[in-house]
Amino acid sequence: MTWSKLSYNLFRAVKPRLAYEEFSLRYYSMPRRALMYVPGDDPKKIQKSFTIDVDCIALDCEDGVAANKKTEARELIHSFLNKEKPKRDRDYDLGVRINSLDIPIWKEDLKSCLTASHLPDTVLVPKVECPEDIKLFSEESGKLLQGDARVNLIIYIESAGAFLNIVDICKMADKLANVGKFLPVSLVFGGDDLYASLGAIKSEECTEVLYARQKLVLVAKAFKLQAIDMVHIKYKDLEGLKAQCEQGMKMGYTGKQVIHPGQVPVVQESFLPTATQIEWATGLLESFKKHQKEGKGAFTYRGSMIDMPTMRQAENIVKLAQLKKYQ
Amino acid sequence: MTWSKLSYNLFRAVKPRLAYEEFSLRYYSMPRRALMYVPGDDPKKIQKSFTIDVDCIALDCEDGVAANKKTEARELIHSFLNKEKPKRDRDYDLGVRINSLDIPIWKEDLKSCLTASHLPDTVLVPKVECPEDIKLFSEESGKLLQGDARVNLIIYIESAGAFLNIVDICKMADKLANVGKFLPVSLVFGGDDLYASLGAIKSEECTEVLYARQKLVLVAKAFKLQAIDMVHIKYKDLEGLKAQCEQGMKMGYTGKQVIHPGQVPVVQESFLPTATQIEWATGLLESFKKHQKEGKGAFTYRGSMIDMPTMRQAENIVKLAQLKKYQ
Amino acid sequence: MTWSKLSYNLFRAVKPRLAYEEFSLRYYSMPRRALMYVPGDDPKKIQKSFTIDVDCIALDCEDGVAANKKTEARELIHSFLNKEKPKRDRDYDLGVRINSLDIPIWKEDLKSCLTASHLPDTVLVPKVECPEDIKLFSEESGKLLQGDARVNLIIYIESAGAFLNIVDICKMADKLANVGKFLPVSLVFGGDDLYASLGAIKSEECTEVLYARQKLVLVAKAFKLQAIDMVHIKYKDLEGLKAQCEQGMKMGYTGKQVIHPGQVPVVQESFLPTATQIEWATGLLESFKKHQKEGKGAFTYRGSMIDMPTMRQAENIVKLAQLKKYQ
Repeated sequence: MTWSKLSYNLFRAVKPRLAYEEFSLRYYSMPRRALMYVPGDDPKKIQKSFTIDVDCIALDCEDGVAANKKTEARELIHSFLNKEKPKRDRDYDLGVRINSLDIPIWKEDLKSCLTASHLPDTVLVPKVECPEDIKLFSEESGKLLQGDARVNLIIYIESAGAFLNIVDICKMADKLANVGKFLPVSLVFGGDDLYASLGAIKSEECTEVLYARQKLVLVAKAFKLQAIDMVHIKYKDLEGLKAQCEQGMKMGYTGKQVIHPGQVPVVQESFLPTATQIEWATGLLESFKKHQKEGKGAFTYRGSMIDMPTMRQAENIVKLAQLKKYQ
Repeated sequence: MTWSKLSYNLFRAVKPRLAYEEFSLRYYSMPRRALMYVPGDDPKKIQKSFTIDVDCIALDCEDGVAANKKTEARELIHSFLNKEKPKRDRDYDLGVRINSLDIPIWKEDLKSCLTASHLPDTVLVPKVECPEDIKLFSEESGKLLQGDARVNLIIYIESAGAFLNIVDICKMADKLANVGKFLPVSLVFGGDDLYASLGAIKSEECTEVLYARQKLVLVAKAFKLQAIDMVHIKYKDLEGLKAQCEQGMKMGYTGKQVIHPGQVPVVQESFLPTATQIEWATGLLESFKKHQKEGKGAFTYRGSMIDMPTMRQAENIVKLAQLKKYQ
Repeated sequence: MTWSKLSYNLFRAVKPRLAYEEFSLRYYSMPRRALMYVPGDDPKKIQKSFTIDVDCIALDCEDGVAANKKTEARELIHSFLNKEKPKRDRDYDLGVRINSLDIPIWKEDLKSCLTASHLPDTVLVPKVECPEDIKLFSEESGKLLQGDARVNLIIYIESAGAFLNIVDICKMADKLANVGKFLPVSLVFGGDDLYASLGAIKSEECTEVLYARQKLVLVAKAFKLQAIDMVHIKYKDLEGLKAQCEQGMKMGYTGKQVIHPGQVPVVQESFLPTATQIEWATGLLESFKKHQKEGKGAFTYRGSMIDMPTMRQAENIVKLAQLKKYQ
């Protein structure tokens, strides 16, 4: 089974769907391993963020900004967007996290960033609760974006209620992406907000929200979206961060939210396959091609019976490994 | 984000919804940490239950009563309800668990308890399988309750089939609560029945039903219902009980079913926040207010980056802590 | 609560439903503990499979057969089906796994096996993605099957998209089973394909897919289908196999896919209840009957409070134990 067949399967599963080429584009063209928040009201931190080798920067209007600094943050972000996006060796994602759609100022946030001289690559919408929120976002951004201009959309799922609506939210995003001016690229697991919404208490292993954390990955992958994992708030605990990264990565998460620059290298490293994995996957694919030529389907590789699905896992790893050249 | 905004979010998520004030009322006005079953056919145990300091008593017509004692139980409960509800230092919830709606005698159970001189606070309906069950309950209780009389409703989810319908069950309860004479207050996780329905085998950690156990909490919280955890049937094993309480509490459960008076203190204690948690949460809230005044959004507290969601978790803990004065 | 009441509950939950007698028949008449794949293009392996004491044989047209051997496999399976099904001491399930419905040759596979002199007991359909796939299968098999001829259907759920549609897939299978010529009997958890679909990485414990693995059991049991667990691909690691069998069995899985004859005894043994469990369950049921006669509902057995659900778990174990006579 080829990748295009995988895409076709998906197509059958959740209609209406985008064409494979578009998926492929949005899913692989821009890795979002570390998604780093920068308080929108802090010019020094914003300036510094452009010097950090990170996949994805989110200039924040929301939770990282105090209630009485909201206007300041909005205007500061606007002024930064009026300048050229600072260049780097390789491209990166520059986004703006607006306030959630139940606070009226979200429209000002959106207007401010979509009317700057340079568009952000991505708009991040926190606390999406229902499909109607996506509709609202689509209408407002549609009015503001001129001509062929498009932005990526990152959707946050952060409450018990949002989890009940998660499939409908993604269906709406998919539907409106075809007619609107945005492209949904990722779902974010708002772990800490969810803990609060559930009245749950976080342990080291975060097993309390395993249901929600794995449901989000599954829904994201069904809609070919990236899945971005919860924040590790103990930002000095890099060991714990690493463990949590690996836990999420093994579930299928493609990246993780980051609240401190010191977390970035650990996260970006964790969401690359390990040398062992790459060596295993490369060897397996070679062995597979050899057996396929000889007309053998199932075969053994290093003591394990290998079939199509395992082979595809190996393909996944090799694809991720190709990002290492950007490191 | 304030608590009323949380409620508004919820409102957007799953309409139609009750007003916030009503939620607040039903959700916080009566803690249901230990939900203790008392066999309805045993006058001594019923009498004794009134002397136990427990949040919630369920006089049982269902699984705790043998098939040939059903009438006896119903009549005995009726006669107890004809007397004044015994007074205590603080109020408590006095309920009746009727038989499930697929056994015709459930109507007799309901009639018997809703026509007593004093209404029970709550009717507990086991083995709810589909929204139609809620409709049936609403119709029957509507006929029996006079004038402004209202009862709380506790809904049991206990089978594989019921879990497929859990969201629709809650939507129906919410909808009919607005027109009917009952107020849904809690979902109960019928763990042992579910094990039987799945053909599953229980281990110490109960990981086999993690999916269902966490799904129930999430749905309950989306509908602002209390979530009441499974029974620990080894009633002499108070260590194991404590561990299971903490496991559930960390997932967001607000209480636990209890089959023996000896289990009550452990359960009631477990579903209160610990001294450490209260101290952490109180300190955090103070620190938050201070930073908020100074115009800082994100800030660190004891080495962790704190934002809105974490702050709300702290609020949850402080709210629960206020119950300690009743202990 | 009796078994027939359980069935009635189910009936209420997910309509339209088959009658209890039919469920009972399909669910208990044929254990499918080990479901063993045999490459359809290998006459020696097929011949050998008939000598192995295994509940369920799947002659494979799909992943176990290389792309350039598909026709060979189809024709070889046809020729084996033209002979009498080899007899054994006790009956077993002889099935054909066709290619998935997004590859056109699936129709040739189906036609080939349903027009042989002897029908296979079961057709196994991999990578079912949506209800329409079941409809397609129903139409094609309906055209091919003559008169009263019927086949069992085993449905594979193997991708993120399929998990979003799993309930609708089962509803469609249930609906069409009533008018069509097939009887859905099992859901298969396509673990390795799912890992690939999620981009997940498998650990020893397989916790990364706990959500999906437990959701599948729950849906299967709600529709009274057998639940067949993922492959353990390290086929020489019988210790690991045993651990994974027990993990699945405790969740409610009734069987497991097997890719090597050496795995069969471990799997078939694991999906029987242990001597301790049988002794516990038998004793409990006797004790229950005694207490029931005396008019006691809740009672203690070996230090645990026993009620109806626990009793039903014991019944489950005793039912499984009866299969031991076939060993």
